[in-house]
Amino acid sequence: MTLVTLTTDFGLSDPFVGIMKGVIAGRAPTAPVIDVTHDIPPQDVLAGALVLRHAVPYFPAGAIHVAVVDPGVGTERRPLCIETARGFLVGPDNGLLSLAARDVRRIIHLTDERFFLTPRSATFHGRDVFAPVAAALASGTAAPALGVEVQDMHRLAVPEPVVAGRAIRGQVLYIDRFGNLVSNVGRDTIDRFRAALTIRVGRVSVRNLSASYAAVAPEEPVAVVNSWGLVEVAVRNGSARERAGAGVGDPLVIEAD
Amino acid sequence: MTLVTLTTDFGLSDPFVGIMKGVIAGRAPTAPVIDVTHDIPPQDVLAGALVLRHAVPYFPAGAIHVAVVDPGVGTERRPLCIETARGFLVGPDNGLLSLAARDVRRIIHLTDERFFLTPRSATFHGRDVFAPVAAALASGTAAPALGVEVQDMHRLAVPEPVVAGRAIRGQVLYIDRFGNLVSNVGRDTIDRFRAALTIRVGRVSVRNLSASYAAVAPEEPVAVVNSWGLVEVAVRNGSARERAGAGVGDPLVIEAD
Amino acid sequence: MTLVTLTTDFGLSDPFVGIMKGVIAGRAPTAPVIDVTHDIPPQDVLAGALVLRHAVPYFPAGAIHVAVVDPGVGTERRPLCIETARGFLVGPDNGLLSLAARDVRRIIHLTDERFFLTPRSATFHGRDVFAPVAAALASGTAAPALGVEVQDMHRLAVPEPVVAGRAIRGQVLYIDRFGNLVSNVGRDTIDRFRAALTIRVGRVSVRNLSASYAAVAPEEPVAVVNSWGLVEVAVRNGSARERAGAGVGDPLVIEAD
Repeated sequence: MTLVTLTTDFGLSDPFVGIMKGVIAGRAPTAPVIDVTHDIPPQDVLAGALVLRHAVPYFPAGAIHVAVVDPGVGTERRPLCIETARGFLVGPDNGLLSLAARDVRRIIHLTDERFFLTPRSATFHGRDVFAPVAAALASGTAAPALGVEVQDMHRLAVPEPVVAGRAIRGQVLYIDRFGNLVSNVGRDTIDRFRAALTIRVGRVSVRNLSASYAAVAPEEPVAVVNSWGLVEVAVRNGSARERAGAGVGDPLVIEAD
Repeated sequence: MTLVTLTTDFGLSDPFVGIMKGVIAGRAPTAPVIDVTHDIPPQDVLAGALVLRHAVPYFPAGAIHVAVVDPGVGTERRPLCIETARGFLVGPDNGLLSLAARDVRRIIHLTDERFFLTPRSATFHGRDVFAPVAAALASGTAAPALGVEVQDMHRLAVPEPVVAGRAIRGQVLYIDRFGNLVSNVGRDTIDRFRAALTIRVGRVSVRNLSASYAAVAPEEPVAVVNSWGLVEVAVRNGSARERAGAGVGDPLVIEAD
Repeated sequence: MTLVTLTTDFGLSDPFVGIMKGVIAGRAPTAPVIDVTHDIPPQDVLAGALVLRHAVPYFPAGAIHVAVVDPGVGTERRPLCIETARGFLVGPDNGLLSLAARDVRRIIHLTDERFFLTPRSATFHGRDVFAPVAAALASGTAAPALGVEVQDMHRLAVPEPVVAGRAIRGQVLYIDRFGNLVSNVGRDTIDRFRAALTIRVGRVSVRNLSASYAAVAPEEPVAVVNSWGLVEVAVRNGSARERAGAGVGDPLVIEAD
């Protein structure tokens, strides 16, 4: 009973995700399927890759993680299965899987069409390629049987924060449903600064890191190291996105006094 | 372990769908439940019927498909179970089940109240009628035991495209989350035209069918035969709905040169 | 195979809910998990408590209901497990669990950190505290083993309707996805009035209770006793919220002729 997870930009308003689950249920009836999220912004491969990077470690070893954010569906971009020490990543070779791909054992280019649905559409490989391949893995098919081993994959560059003197220049990497602004500044980077700090993003300026959102009064901005280990600016019981007027890619700057 | 699927217009912001699953879990604890979608536009029976038609074939044989888009809840409209060669369709007799109902073996008017929840509300038959009936089927109750066999059901008329000379006059049938405009023109109809084509919908005009979305440059419109076998107009990495300014029911016209 | 349910304000656009399910799957692999809803308005503890109150009775006895609407995450607010005659409620001690907590057997303050994830973040106790505790319960850990028994919990005051002569002054308690206005006036209260009635909320005035939404013409307002046993004002095939211009907390007044 191998677990399958799904991460897509398909949304839940159309039947696409349900149909993928139907295909898996037909071929691997006892495999549990868990949705990571289906609300990756349409065709935002980097957002999908970040979500996958931070979600995969919380799933059991051996899990099969299917991800589909696939603007190149129907083209020559390769479908991949990446086998890692912790499980499998299945999806298009556009960088989506690359941030979660740690301790890679082998990369399989999915070429064996016997594992695909027939006929195969040019627009919905989630249904026709990735779901049936995940079902095959869940049913015990070894990854190498699914295609040919290759040595490379498309990798995404995640913007790194720049440390210059007493300042860290980072940026907003992700914004969650609460409007919390998640930066690319990790715990390791911020821990070098033991002084008092000012964190600035858009129109918001926050003094120092707090232990929790509730360390400040309601409606006040607050900075924390969040559950992904990243510096995050929030507004208690409010939206930092709105307060700061900031979006993904905007600078977030941290200065020591 | 018979699979149950759910298709409704209940959305996911209220607990309605969770409550239906609770009822099923109490009566058929080992039945897996898969959501097709719960974001059918409120009370849009045709949209629900189309989704069900295109989703059901991808589920295993024997599955029990519950659908609830039910503006007539609490009236005399009949609750039905339709047994087909592929499984069961359970829901109100308002046409919702009719497009997915192929190879019908029998139609059962659900009259045996012993299978319903008591008391039965007049506003939530998803919870009080359809979920417990699905659980009964999943637990091995034969369809005829649930009520009385009838010979008819309400059927929906799906608008058919009109072929006149070198033109096909179709219309937009469904719009997905990406803003792709799905028409009622099927592969069979379009295949009669082997010439070069122009496809027009709203403000958008596209030359010829492409093999995939990525056959055109980003932000360009493109027409494909989609994963439902229907002609679809999309904008690569964008929204055809916005570009065309078109909605469900608007004409989509295809002309051969 | 004990059932776990999840009710949160996390939404489904981020991976938070998926991650909670990953934690549960790793520690209680056979426990089915059902979503009640994840679209409680952010940090609206009362809305979450109402949803839980009306959903829990439809789940099987013994189920473990995890709820996380937790503006105080990371502070001294206690994490609780409430054992009732019907199952378990797990979540923060801020009133969220209190309306569903009937026939309470014991209240456990979750203090045993061996059941938590390590390290424990200050911002995501759904992942680090409540999911692993639910998995422990689902795997057979007795509630008292999870911490220390306490005698009290935070309780919410739900506004009660006021009956004065021939009038009931209630208020809007909840608005569902259809825009239906659910009041705090229960069946018991309204049943005292056997006369003809007028129900007023915002700009809408309705004569008498109807048996179903479909008792009136399309686009007309209608009042029913809904599936929660509460007086509700709806607009058939429309939105009472929009028609009435009313929100949660606004008065809903019922007068006998």
